[in-house]
Amino acid sequence: MNIAVLGTGMVGRAIAGRLGQLGHTVTIGTRDPDATLARTDSDGMGNPSYPAWAAEHPAIRLATFSDAAADSELIVNATNGSASLDVLTLAGAEHLAGKVVVDIANPLDFSHGMPPTLFVKDTDSLGEQIQRTFPLSRVVKTLNTLNANLMVHPDGLPEATSVFVSGNDEDAKATVTAILAEFGHTDVIDLGDITSARGTEMLLPVWLRLMGALGTPTFNFKIVR
Amino acid sequence: MNIAVLGTGMVGRAIAGRLGQLGHTVTIGTRDPDATLARTDSDGMGNPSYPAWAAEHPAIRLATFSDAAADSELIVNATNGSASLDVLTLAGAEHLAGKVVVDIANPLDFSHGMPPTLFVKDTDSLGEQIQRTFPLSRVVKTLNTLNANLMVHPDGLPEATSVFVSGNDEDAKATVTAILAEFGHTDVIDLGDITSARGTEMLLPVWLRLMGALGTPTFNFKIVR
Repeated sequence: MNIAVLGTGMVGRAIAGRLGQLGHTVTIGTRDPDATLARTDSDGMGNPSYPAWAAEHPAIRLATFSDAAADSELIVNATNGSASLDVLTLAGAEHLAGKVVVDIANPLDFSHGMPPTLFVKDTDSLGEQIQRTFPLSRVVKTLNTLNANLMVHPDGLPEATSVFVSGNDEDAKATVTAILAEFGHTDVIDLGDITSARGTEMLLPVWLRLMGALGTPTFNFKIVR
Repeated sequence: MNIAVLGTGMVGRAIAGRLGQLGHTVTIGTRDPDATLARTDSDGMGNPSYPAWAAEHPAIRLATFSDAAADSELIVNATNGSASLDVLTLAGAEHLAGKVVVDIANPLDFSHGMPPTLFVKDTDSLGEQIQRTFPLSRVVKTLNTLNANLMVHPDGLPEATSVFVSGNDEDAKATVTAILAEFGHTDVIDLGDITSARGTEMLLPVWLRLMGALGTPTFNFKIVR
């Protein structure tokens, strides 16, 4: 499948790299490809600069948000939650129309210090904001409840865990569930329409406390029933 | 241990019954014991009236909130979240002072229809409201993330799952963790101070969606790491 991954950070790289490894044609979208390719800085968390990462992933193309979305059948929003609506607008509503938009961002607000709060919650969600802003796209919220590496390599944990999908379009959720299965997820729970993204986005506060308590981001929720 | 359980609903009964079975001396607190003992109605969810339940649990005493709290070493808040501060005020700050107050309520707001929203969240929590209102008590938030029956019989699931404690007092959390172990919980995760109750209270929206998606309240989160 031709897939655009919007965002050059850890999450975007993890998703893009894994999709490429699985045989998909992947284009990473960024605001200004020349600027991204000129970066020499790491991100302060030990991750390489984008060009250093790209050199190890020669099959993955870099393009503007708009060009990446235009050429793809499915678009992954792997940007910061606070930038997501702007980035998707740059990608172009006409390039998102009719397509599956996989939203894995979280509406984290760091402006009041740590731990972050949520800039939308409880009566609305980022997933719903994206669906309302791009009504012709088919938004599926997923993978926002675990660490980037575990999103695409769930076998990094000692047993199978759970991930969730939320969205209004059943075919879109089936497409996304198939990709999640390619990643190795064996327990994908369909929570219902896009309003159920409120639930998974509101998992972030306990996820952040768990990371602190356990001293690692390498954990996930398993829904035992 | 002498324990007061405030609340005569399903959660209060589950906790009180199990504590009694484990050998604790339990008093259930209610607003008006005579009125509670005069009830003949079931709750519309197939649960017996309070007198019918009490007849099967003769060792468990019924008293006013105040009398129940006065005579106990540890108090469990098993009321509806919207009533919790009022009920604890009726119990009496002087009867809560110095004692462990186990808060298992959720700040659910049903006034806008289903699914309920949360009347406090993200930058504050019901657990914190209780701790601020009764600064001499030692509040521990726990057990608000699973069904009443599973709170006290976690072996009702096919494998061990996780529960959480949040609170400012380490000794109080140790006391509560010991009671959770008596119930059968083998993975009690200390999330930190009472502000971490924000995380577990914000789990409710996804819990409610999961109950809908799975068609049962008999499930729980296991933190796999």
